[in-house]
Amino acid sequence: MPVLYHHWLSPAARFVRVLLAEKRIGFDLRIEKEWDRRPAFLALNPAGEVPVLVMDDGKAYSGVMAIAEFLEEVVPEPALLTGSADERYEIRRLVGWFHTKLGSEVTRHLVTEKLFKRFFGMGEPDSEAIRCAAHNLKIHLKYITFLVERRHYLAGQQFTMADAAAAAHISVADYFGNIYWQDWPHVKEWYVRVKSRRSVRTLLSDKIKGLAPSPHYSELDF
Amino acid sequence: MPVLYHHWLSPAARFVRVLLAEKRIGFDLRIEKEWDRRPAFLALNPAGEVPVLVMDDGKAYSGVMAIAEFLEEVVPEPALLTGSADERYEIRRLVGWFHTKLGSEVTRHLVTEKLFKRFFGMGEPDSEAIRCAAHNLKIHLKYITFLVERRHYLAGQQFTMADAAAAAHISVADYFGNIYWQDWPHVKEWYVRVKSRRSVRTLLSDKIKGLAPSPHYSELDF
Repeated sequence: MPVLYHHWLSPAARFVRVLLAEKRIGFDLRIEKEWDRRPAFLALNPAGEVPVLVMDDGKAYSGVMAIAEFLEEVVPEPALLTGSADERYEIRRLVGWFHTKLGSEVTRHLVTEKLFKRFFGMGEPDSEAIRCAAHNLKIHLKYITFLVERRHYLAGQQFTMADAAAAAHISVADYFGNIYWQDWPHVKEWYVRVKSRRSVRTLLSDKIKGLAPSPHYSELDF
Repeated sequence: MPVLYHHWLSPAARFVRVLLAEKRIGFDLRIEKEWDRRPAFLALNPAGEVPVLVMDDGKAYSGVMAIAEFLEEVVPEPALLTGSADERYEIRRLVGWFHTKLGSEVTRHLVTEKLFKRFFGMGEPDSEAIRCAAHNLKIHLKYITFLVERRHYLAGQQFTMADAAAAAHISVADYFGNIYWQDWPHVKEWYVRVKSRRSVRTLLSDKIKGLAPSPHYSELDF
């Protein structure tokens, strides 16, 4: 069975978990503390980062977008990157947006300050960084509102990789209790729809020892 | 004619310039000072970043990998993302590697410290950041050496997007004179090969007013 190296609050790993589940590819999860820079793991991915997907033949795949495109090519159904060249462009643009922009402006700060610093005794969380992330998150929630006011899912009428990428990041922010859902009714409507998918529900049973999720984190109706 | 919004030492914009030239798509270059956050530019790309490609029908494309995949789909020849699913995976992994890892560990620091700080009067360049970038660059040049010892081009026997991405970043580091070529004979051999392509040569005539490139920057044999 394929193995996915991950850690719980890595949005990139969550994204790949959703894609695998959508495509009904069974896999085992293995936690990798990438910060240990374990030589056997570096041999799988010289970048030293999760997610890494090791397929049954032992071949290792890394790089979040490279994995996603590979899965789409080898298991085309159900299609998560579909439509005309323009529609496919829009899906990829949004996937890039969430992983790069939302990732660097919001989730990376939250994970560093609220998880890593605490677990590794790296001192107090930097409240300025958390405030920044919270401010940036609002801009992204506004942008998601703009998208879902026009579309059933983020890139159009169907669930695509763009929704998987957004859900991966939003679920991390929500784990930390950073989203005040009453302020974001359109995003909430989309997230309820996304959360009801079997592929996304698997993320909602994640529990990190010593860091409980926000009370509504795993609720399908919240 | 399509218009590419860019600035001279943006590796992501350089990458798209090479792809367009490889595919023989004529285009006009327009400099965009993304830091001005010009409303008309934000309307083209809400991320506010170059490159943005505006096609003849007025549609704007942003997000470096989304642009690259779109160009490959609408102008398939010459193919820059080709081969089996595994070969295509490897090309995409490397493109992601150069833009994300080399970009954040090397070129972003060089451009910030050596160009932006100087031109915007943001104070003295941070010599620690430059030293870090120089150290990281060596690790990346080692990795490129590892690749080209085994392959004619980075992802295999043909020039692909992976070479375009690496050339975009390496050419920026080389503009600043950060590469001591005598130490990297294998990388140099690959770069001579890449520099001799018409698509890459167009980058070598770039000159930034007040910041001359390293003496060998535009030499095909150096």
